[in-house]
Amino acid sequence: MQSLTNQLGAMLNKRRAPIIEFNRVSFVIGIMLLVLTVFMFPPAVTDVIADNPDWKVFAGSAFFTGFIGMMLVMMSRGRWSNEVSLKEGFLLTVLSWVVLATFAAMPFVFLGGGLSLIDAWFEAVSGLTTTGSTVLSGLDDLPPGILLWRSIIQWIGGIGIVVMALIMLPFLKVGGMQLFQTENSDRSDKFLPRAREVMGLIAFTYVALTTACAIAYGVAGMNGFDALNHAMTTVATSGFSTHDASFGYFKEPAIHIVAIVFMFASSLPLVLYVKAVKTGSLSAFNDQQVRGFAKMVAVILIGLTLWLAARPEISLGEAVLKVGFNAMSIISTTGFASEDYTAWGSGAVGTFFVLMFLGGCTGSTTGGIKAFRLQVMLLSSFNYLKQLMSPNRVVVATYNGKQITADIATSVLAYLSVMFASVMMFTVALSFFGLGFITSLSGALSALANIGPALGPTIGPAFNYGGLPDGAKLILIVGMLLGRLEFFTVLVILNRDFWR
Amino acid sequence: MQSLTNQLGAMLNKRRAPIIEFNRVSFVIGIMLLVLTVFMFPPAVTDVIADNPDWKVFAGSAFFTGFIGMMLVMMSRGRWSNEVSLKEGFLLTVLSWVVLATFAAMPFVFLGGGLSLIDAWFEAVSGLTTTGSTVLSGLDDLPPGILLWRSIIQWIGGIGIVVMALIMLPFLKVGGMQLFQTENSDRSDKFLPRAREVMGLIAFTYVALTTACAIAYGVAGMNGFDALNHAMTTVATSGFSTHDASFGYFKEPAIHIVAIVFMFASSLPLVLYVKAVKTGSLSAFNDQQVRGFAKMVAVILIGLTLWLAARPEISLGEAVLKVGFNAMSIISTTGFASEDYTAWGSGAVGTFFVLMFLGGCTGSTTGGIKAFRLQVMLLSSFNYLKQLMSPNRVVVATYNGKQITADIATSVLAYLSVMFASVMMFTVALSFFGLGFITSLSGALSALANIGPALGPTIGPAFNYGGLPDGAKLILIVGMLLGRLEFFTVLVILNRDFWR
Repeated sequence: MQSLTNQLGAMLNKRRAPIIEFNRVSFVIGIMLLVLTVFMFPPAVTDVIADNPDWKVFAGSAFFTGFIGMMLVMMSRGRWSNEVSLKEGFLLTVLSWVVLATFAAMPFVFLGGGLSLIDAWFEAVSGLTTTGSTVLSGLDDLPPGILLWRSIIQWIGGIGIVVMALIMLPFLKVGGMQLFQTENSDRSDKFLPRAREVMGLIAFTYVALTTACAIAYGVAGMNGFDALNHAMTTVATSGFSTHDASFGYFKEPAIHIVAIVFMFASSLPLVLYVKAVKTGSLSAFNDQQVRGFAKMVAVILIGLTLWLAARPEISLGEAVLKVGFNAMSIISTTGFASEDYTAWGSGAVGTFFVLMFLGGCTGSTTGGIKAFRLQVMLLSSFNYLKQLMSPNRVVVATYNGKQITADIATSVLAYLSVMFASVMMFTVALSFFGLGFITSLSGALSALANIGPALGPTIGPAFNYGGLPDGAKLILIVGMLLGRLEFFTVLVILNRDFWR
Repeated sequence: MQSLTNQLGAMLNKRRAPIIEFNRVSFVIGIMLLVLTVFMFPPAVTDVIADNPDWKVFAGSAFFTGFIGMMLVMMSRGRWSNEVSLKEGFLLTVLSWVVLATFAAMPFVFLGGGLSLIDAWFEAVSGLTTTGSTVLSGLDDLPPGILLWRSIIQWIGGIGIVVMALIMLPFLKVGGMQLFQTENSDRSDKFLPRAREVMGLIAFTYVALTTACAIAYGVAGMNGFDALNHAMTTVATSGFSTHDASFGYFKEPAIHIVAIVFMFASSLPLVLYVKAVKTGSLSAFNDQQVRGFAKMVAVILIGLTLWLAARPEISLGEAVLKVGFNAMSIISTTGFASEDYTAWGSGAVGTFFVLMFLGGCTGSTTGGIKAFRLQVMLLSSFNYLKQLMSPNRVVVATYNGKQITADIATSVLAYLSVMFASVMMFTVALSFFGLGFITSLSGALSALANIGPALGPTIGPAFNYGGLPDGAKLILIVGMLLGRLEFFTVLVILNRDFWR
């Protein structure tokens, strides 16, 4: 991990030149594959302990992945430098997710009963992008190695996203992320040490959060294996479970409460935990994005809870738990389900559809539009409203003390336009594969926002993606990657000008 | 009409002062009510000719509306000046739609069998905003006066929108409409005379288009009454019909072709017809918005036609007609239906849902996001993409020769944010009234984009809005007005600061 962190941290010493040196790209991808190789051993060991022959699959996958990783590193003939050009940044960001997902899919192909190539790739992409849609069923009867592997790729994906959001996206200026450029940081960020150290601290925080979550799950009543797996997929807000019934399997309210707390905690920017520890004060969380997100969550949870508790058959306590768990799961784009909330009535379906857009804070592992973009939209609109009334007054909207410049407004407009257009195009594409309207629309949104469950009778919270036609699965794979990479990183690569 | 036009034209002599003189506002509203009064006579005469006692209702409504109109004009004690302040502009824009719709609802309440207040208001708002959702059924058996009245209020609404888009919205700078400010107009617009004259020409063009459409319908096989009514609601892209089956009632292909042609023609900016006549050249239509809209329509129609024609039971000719009519009806936000296109399969449902967002060109009678905003979104996104790759190059996006300034990008972002948020909030609100998800979502969108029919088994193209609960109807009334007034005009009025 430390090695990966160092390499990525080094990217901050960037050079904005339009050059692609493939040696540098292959070096970094090679290092990442070696890291992935290391993570293939825990599932192998688990299967050895469980006396399950699948350990060979993991050992074989590790051998092959490690071999390719070594090859890439060697081929780049030590031509590593501490600099990364803008184009290399884009290429690395996109390639790393695609390549890692492809290698992570290997165990799914060779396991007993083996998945088709499309299914294996779907599961791996869904894992690494922390979406959490699954094509597998009968999870409860699967050997422990593969269950652990699913959790591990989600957990790796989670830290990958945080690193990407902290370093690559502000550097690439994608989707308004320049608001989080550390170069422009104001006084309050001065205490932050160099990026390399931050990355180490972020990784440490991630491990610490996961450990705390696992212990809490254990204390609340999960067995050790479940606690570890669900801790990884909770902190990565990713949503794979070891049971077909997801959290419906666990009856203890304490377990659901732990999940709610950690899904919320994992929706906050990880870097704020680092700040809080460094300054020894919780005031690090007094951040405009966190405040906005917390308010939004509070309003949604309270509103939905009161609505559900109004029914004679549901007590207030039950309503708090049901709403808290399922709404927090969708807002944080985790995608666990404790029951089929679409059965609560039409009001719930409409509401959960809207929740699917939101997402947590940027710099967390969540997907969706994310709190800061919603806030920029809100602030820009409100500012615009003021300007409409008094055209001669100059009103400047600010966010976290930084001005919302035209640059940022345009980035956010571009992000929303593309997000919106993508939801539309993916809906149409899925519906031409014969999926119903609700399935197509919510499936497209769920993939693009990296949530997991969708709505409706095919891929709703009580179902899985196994029954979809292969074409639809391919579309969703593209959607999950596009959404995770915040659209523009991919669009830039696909542009002809990029390759000149 | 000329008098209304003069008053509105005078608004261009504006003063951007934060003053509201209610005398001026009431004077204009009074004049508008007097115009509305005049339009109540044709239905009265029609009912007299048809020997139907409903003529008394129209006569009574005319008397009452005329009386109130006179009162307002007299109360303002001739205190009319040629100037309108910015705040008065907002107030007038919003008030005129609400007040006119309320008076236009009167005949619906007092007619034989009379509608409830909510239903009558729904029908009138749906009419005046050119939405075209109806709560009435059994249209074929209704007396001619009320059918004519429905067409007339849509037709008045249509010209009202064009005037609003041409004069008020660019002045108020709502939703990126400053792109169409005539003050900033470039050379190619120089030939345009003063606004007052333009308004007269616009009104003339509107009448000419309507007449041409009525004659074409007559030649194609409609009887005179149907031809007149459908011409008014085609040119207003509004969609009320004199038959429950809408255009399904007419079997002649020629009638459908006429409708397709005039729905397309009415989706173009009316001012371009004025230009074309003035310059005696069709090159007036060589406009970036028209080109973009035409391309979009071509791609959609060809794609859908090929898809539908691939079925053995549908000939290419049939497919052209079915797709051309129904897709053009939704894109232009007219809302006529020739059949239940949702029965074409899931692909059609997804596609028509997406079509509901689009709308025609600004400066036409259409609703929806509209071509120029889609183009600004596309151009901004593409420009942003270029900027991402070459951060040091200054790339400026232009539209119709004008720079897409930060100001405009922010306006469009604000418009989209509010449009998007409104679709979400209205979906949730409708779903809490027990409407299913598809009905809630497509109903919210249909109202906000001023289309008419929605999707699904309640308010889809083969059904009507009569069966909805009153609460849902009220929500839709608010939605239709909000969408028609491009959101911000209403939001400005609702802001506390406005009233200081």
